[in-house]
Amino acid sequence: MNKVVYNFSAGPSVLPKQATREAADAIINYAGTGIGILEMSHRSKPIESMVAETDSLLRELMQIPDNYDIVFLGGGASLQFCMVPMNILDSSASADYTDTGVWASKALKEAKQFGTVNVVSSSKQDVYSHIPKTFEQTPGATYLHITSNNTIYGTQWKKFPKANTYLVADMSSDILSRKFDISDFGLIYAGAQKNMSCAGVTVAIIRKDILGKVNRTIPTMLNYKTHIEEKSMFNTPPVFPIFVMNRTLSWLKQIGGVDAMEALNNKKSGLLYEAIDSSKLFRGPAAVEDRSAMNVTFVLNKEAVAADKVEALEKEFLASCKENGLEQLKGHRSVGGFRASIYNAMPIEGVEALVKELQAFEKKVLG
Amino acid sequence: MNKVVYNFSAGPSVLPKQATREAADAIINYAGTGIGILEMSHRSKPIESMVAETDSLLRELMQIPDNYDIVFLGGGASLQFCMVPMNILDSSASADYTDTGVWASKALKEAKQFGTVNVVSSSKQDVYSHIPKTFEQTPGATYLHITSNNTIYGTQWKKFPKANTYLVADMSSDILSRKFDISDFGLIYAGAQKNMSCAGVTVAIIRKDILGKVNRTIPTMLNYKTHIEEKSMFNTPPVFPIFVMNRTLSWLKQIGGVDAMEALNNKKSGLLYEAIDSSKLFRGPAAVEDRSAMNVTFVLNKEAVAADKVEALEKEFLASCKENGLEQLKGHRSVGGFRASIYNAMPIEGVEALVKELQAFEKKVLG
Repeated sequence: MNKVVYNFSAGPSVLPKQATREAADAIINYAGTGIGILEMSHRSKPIESMVAETDSLLRELMQIPDNYDIVFLGGGASLQFCMVPMNILDSSASADYTDTGVWASKALKEAKQFGTVNVVSSSKQDVYSHIPKTFEQTPGATYLHITSNNTIYGTQWKKFPKANTYLVADMSSDILSRKFDISDFGLIYAGAQKNMSCAGVTVAIIRKDILGKVNRTIPTMLNYKTHIEEKSMFNTPPVFPIFVMNRTLSWLKQIGGVDAMEALNNKKSGLLYEAIDSSKLFRGPAAVEDRSAMNVTFVLNKEAVAADKVEALEKEFLASCKENGLEQLKGHRSVGGFRASIYNAMPIEGVEALVKELQAFEKKVLG
Repeated sequence: MNKVVYNFSAGPSVLPKQATREAADAIINYAGTGIGILEMSHRSKPIESMVAETDSLLRELMQIPDNYDIVFLGGGASLQFCMVPMNILDSSASADYTDTGVWASKALKEAKQFGTVNVVSSSKQDVYSHIPKTFEQTPGATYLHITSNNTIYGTQWKKFPKANTYLVADMSSDILSRKFDISDFGLIYAGAQKNMSCAGVTVAIIRKDILGKVNRTIPTMLNYKTHIEEKSMFNTPPVFPIFVMNRTLSWLKQIGGVDAMEALNNKKSGLLYEAIDSSKLFRGPAAVEDRSAMNVTFVLNKEAVAADKVEALEKEFLASCKENGLEQLKGHRSVGGFRASIYNAMPIEGVEALVKELQAFEKKVLG
C-alpha cells in the first residue's frame, strides 16, 4: 500500500525524490569509499570537494560573481538576525528594515541591539496581508533589509526595492525559485530547509566590500570572515545538510536551472490561484499583486459559509485532504485557514491533485 | 567486493551500523508516514515526540536530574566557546580555564571577550602531552572550565578536578563513554559528531540555577533560555542530526548503557595501549596516567628508526593500514605520527585488526 503523498509543509518541506534517494544511499556508503557520509571527516578529500562543489553549483545557478563569498553555517536563519547587524551595522550607524511579517519583525528586533533600526514600512496592522512598496529610505542608512517571501501570509516581493546603498535579504523561503540581479544585494541569507536542503544549514552570500567596517569585537564563530577564510571549515560544518543541498542543487541544474524552475513555479502557483479565484467556497487573503509563488494561503469565504460552520468545515477539509494524500495544509496559527507550500521540489502533479480536491470539496459543500 | 572498513577518524566518525541503517530508511519514509524525515515539519507530532524522546534517552543514559535542562543547538561546540561565557560569565567576574590542548585554548581565548579569564594550568610547553592536575583555583571565579578529552594529543581527565563552584566542560570527544557524577557540573556541552551523531548538532546540558546572573543583553538565538523555554524549537532545529542522535542513544541503551560502554571502551583502549607498550617500533607520546580511552596516539620510536627513515616509514604504515581496511589513522598535523580514534561505535574487531596490523608491520620492519 504505497499511497502517493504530497507534502505541502511550510518547512522543512518536500525535497526532490532523486536527492533524498541519493542521500539515503550516501549514508550507507559514500561515493564508493566504504564509509557512510555521516561518518566521514569533514577534512577528508571527498567531503572537502563536495563542499567546494556545492559552492560552485550555487554560484552557477544563482549567477553569483566572484566579488561575493558563500558560507555554509549552522544555527538557522534566526541566528543571522543577529549575525548580520553584528558584522555590518556599526553601533553609531542605522539600517532600514521593512516589516512584512513575523520573521521580518524578528530580524529587526534583533538588529536593535547593534545599531539604530529604522522601520521604514509595515503592514502589521493589516495582518501582513500585503507588502508596502512605497516608503522613504533613511539618508545614510547602512543597508535596507527585506524578507523576500513571507511564508506565513503568502506574500512575496515580486520586484525588489532599489536600496540607496545595498539590500540585505532573508531569502529562506524563495531562494532559487526565480531569477534576479544579485548585484543589488550586499548580503543574502537563507535557511536551507525550504528550497535547498533539510534543516541544519544556512547559506550566507556576502559581497566582499561590506565586511570589516564595524567597530566592535565579533566572537570568532559569529564573524563571517572566520568562515569565509576557512571555506566554511573553521570548525566541523553540518556536512550532511550540505550534501543534501549539493544533491538538490544538482537536481535543479538538471531540470534546467532557475529559469526553468521559475517558469514551473509560475505555472504551479498560477493553477492554484486560478482555482481559488474561481471558487465560491475559498478565497485568498493576500493582496493579489503580492501573492507568493511559494506559499499559497487561502481561507473559507465568509460570504459562502456561516461563521459558526467555519471551524468544523476547516477540519473536514483538512481531513479530506489527508485522506487523499495531501498533507500539511493547515495555515499558520496566527492567520488560520490553509496554506499550500509549493516550493521548488513540489511536483505539478501535487498542485493538480490539490486543485481537484478544492473543486471536489466545494461541490460537496455548496452543491 | 565488500571489504570490511574500520574508520578511525577523529570526527565526524564511526556510528553504530544499526543507527545508520535506520537513518537511511527514515529518509525514504519516516515511521510509516509516507514522508521522509528530511522533509517533515519540525512542528509535526512525529518530530516533536522524537526530539522529546532524544532528551529522555540522554537524560536516562547520563542520569541527568531534573534540575538540568538539555538543548540541541546548531553551530558546533566552537559556538559554545562564546555562548558559555556570554550566558554565565559577567563582565565584572572571572572564570578559571585549564589549557590542555588546542580546543581548550580556543575556548579560553573566546571567553576573554566577556570577562576575566584565569588560565590556571597549561601543558602547552610540552605539546599538551599530559594534563596538569595540580593548580590553584581563583577565589571568586564563577566556574572552572575543562576539556574532558583532548582528541589531538590523546589525553583525558581520568578523574575530574573538584571546582570551588562548579565545572563547565567541553565533552565533545568523550561524552557517554564513561560514568561520572553530573552534580559537579554546571554546564556540559558537546558537539555530536564523535560519540552521539553526525555533524550538525551540539548538546548543552545546563544546571537551572546558573543562568540569569549576567548583566548583559544576549542576542535571542545565543541565549540558552530561548532554547530551554521552547524545548529547542524556537526556530527550526537540525532535525536529522537529532534523529541520528536518537538512534545512536537507543543503540547505546540496548547494549547496556554507559556502564557497559565504559567497560568495552576500557577493553578496546587497553588492547591498543598494550600493543603499543609491548612494541619496539611504536610508542605512545601521551603521559600514561592521562591516556585517552577515545583517541590513542602513537608514533614511530626514534630509538628503533633512523630519523631520515621516519617519514617514509610513516607513509608505508598508513598505506598498509588502508590496504587492510584500516582508515583515517594519520595523526593531527600539529603532533604528527598516528591516531586511532576508537569512539563508542568502534567495534572491538576494529581494534583487534589494528593490533594485528601494528604487530605485522613491526615484524616486517624490525624482523
